[in-house]
Amino acid sequence: MKSSDPTQNPQSNLGPNPELNRATHTVSIEKVLGVSSHHAQDALAVEEPLELQLAHGPLDARSVKSISVTMRTPGHDFDLAAGFLMTEGVVRDPNDIDQILYLANSPELPAAKLQTESALPYRPEKNVVRVDLVPEVVVSLANLERNLYTTSSCGICGKASLLALQTVCPPRRKNTFQIEAEVLYQLPNRLRQAQTLFNQTGGIHGAALFNATGKLLAVREDVGRHNAVDKLLGAEFLADRTPLRDTLLLLSGRASFELLQKSLMGGVSMVASVGAPSSLAVQVANDFDIALVGFLRDGHFNIYNGAGHILGHTSD
Amino acid sequence: MKSSDPTQNPQSNLGPNPELNRATHTVSIEKVLGVSSHHAQDALAVEEPLELQLAHGPLDARSVKSISVTMRTPGHDFDLAAGFLMTEGVVRDPNDIDQILYLANSPELPAAKLQTESALPYRPEKNVVRVDLVPEVVVSLANLERNLYTTSSCGICGKASLLALQTVCPPRRKNTFQIEAEVLYQLPNRLRQAQTLFNQTGGIHGAALFNATGKLLAVREDVGRHNAVDKLLGAEFLADRTPLRDTLLLLSGRASFELLQKSLMGGVSMVASVGAPSSLAVQVANDFDIALVGFLRDGHFNIYNGAGHILGHTSD
Repeated sequence: MKSSDPTQNPQSNLGPNPELNRATHTVSIEKVLGVSSHHAQDALAVEEPLELQLAHGPLDARSVKSISVTMRTPGHDFDLAAGFLMTEGVVRDPNDIDQILYLANSPELPAAKLQTESALPYRPEKNVVRVDLVPEVVVSLANLERNLYTTSSCGICGKASLLALQTVCPPRRKNTFQIEAEVLYQLPNRLRQAQTLFNQTGGIHGAALFNATGKLLAVREDVGRHNAVDKLLGAEFLADRTPLRDTLLLLSGRASFELLQKSLMGGVSMVASVGAPSSLAVQVANDFDIALVGFLRDGHFNIYNGAGHILGHTSD
Repeated sequence: MKSSDPTQNPQSNLGPNPELNRATHTVSIEKVLGVSSHHAQDALAVEEPLELQLAHGPLDARSVKSISVTMRTPGHDFDLAAGFLMTEGVVRDPNDIDQILYLANSPELPAAKLQTESALPYRPEKNVVRVDLVPEVVVSLANLERNLYTTSSCGICGKASLLALQTVCPPRRKNTFQIEAEVLYQLPNRLRQAQTLFNQTGGIHGAALFNATGKLLAVREDVGRHNAVDKLLGAEFLADRTPLRDTLLLLSGRASFELLQKSLMGGVSMVASVGAPSSLAVQVANDFDIALVGFLRDGHFNIYNGAGHILGHTSD
């Protein structure tokens, strides 16, 4: 894939976000402590819409369609677009993608037929990303539209059917991932230290990928927890490292159905969340052999699936 | 509106959720503390899809359309449906709604034309709700579809345009709401105490409505924070108490654009969140005269908009 994302840092997934100054916004506030107050400056996590357009079909009859708008924190937008398309099952191979670009930077497409006008009046030059598929790739937009027809942070309505998940998820090998409990305990701090934006704003979700020795492989942040995971998995997908296997995805918040579904599509072996999992998250973990840990904090955690994957603790 | 929601408790918004045993699900887990572990039972917040269908048009040419699927915690489903329709601007008056029912309980509609098959194979009898509008109400489904065409926890893509918000939000009077700082400090504990499901599961969002003296008026919980707010505002809408005015909405988590947009549609005077607000949440508060407080915890809070609405603190 040709990439020209100015927000990308291809050298490292761990480096500072070069778009940091677009990801936070400082405002004047009144800080109140007890009964006294004072003026102060406060950094907010930026929340802006990102419209994703998909161009597909033969070059002489190209079709461009707006397929989603998400409220996201600017930065790593191309990862987000790629991760969304991969975790939704629209593309299965990074070579399916010819290029990703901001609409403002895109030349007119030959015979382009824009089926949807952009709905974004707000900074369209930075908030509309177009993904051009290679002409040979056939996508089922009807299916995608049905799946996206939702308002939830889940976002996967149609796929709420676990049956549907089985038809789209990549083939899975037996899960042989193992990690020591003492390593697990260290991961939330490592995520927190890598969360540049959280440390500035106190209000942004983080998602990080670790290996079995607890090495941080990549981290992403976003006001939407699903976006943080899409950015993380999208970067791995574009680097042709998916399905990931033998990796652990750490979530700064709770684990919902959607996040387990995305983990499944990315091939992750284990998901650990600082918060609680939902009932459906546990069911996906059970059905698809993903180890699942919740409430990982303060020297404690709960194993919801796959106790055999976690070593170094003794049952009373 | 005729209501037959078995999950409703019309006597009180504060009573126990009669569907509590559908809202939590207990599983066997391994609890690990340090290096020792033991088997235990753990209550999870249930996450299940809810499909919302809308029936509208003249009785002899009725149209029924599936307009959204959200991942929600079962209970107060009719409040959720009504709150979603109100906060999305589909209905403006509770009398626009003829009845709300579970699809399983609904008789065949005369001349019904089901334009969308239900996509839910999972407990459809409990997870598909139909809202029947009175024949005279005209809805713009094209507009709704565009707005819902999203995957974010925002859910309001099209309305990411603040301009669009101005066209749909109800008329606002000057905001004269005032509250004492010492009252504000007490609200998170009151919310927490009223959060039946959080206390069981440790993993569910809460939204509560308070008046200026700190009296808890209503509380709702859900795995989706937008759903918790829809349930809360939907109950008020069905009781014909919207626009609410002179009330404070407390959020257990962060304040996003979507939650401010819903607050605006409900007529709330002030929003307080235990977590951080996003940049766009602050902008909505500024533009629409909603007082906004964040990080309300541990005897401290930040005022992001409307410092004059909070009494009882002295500027250094």
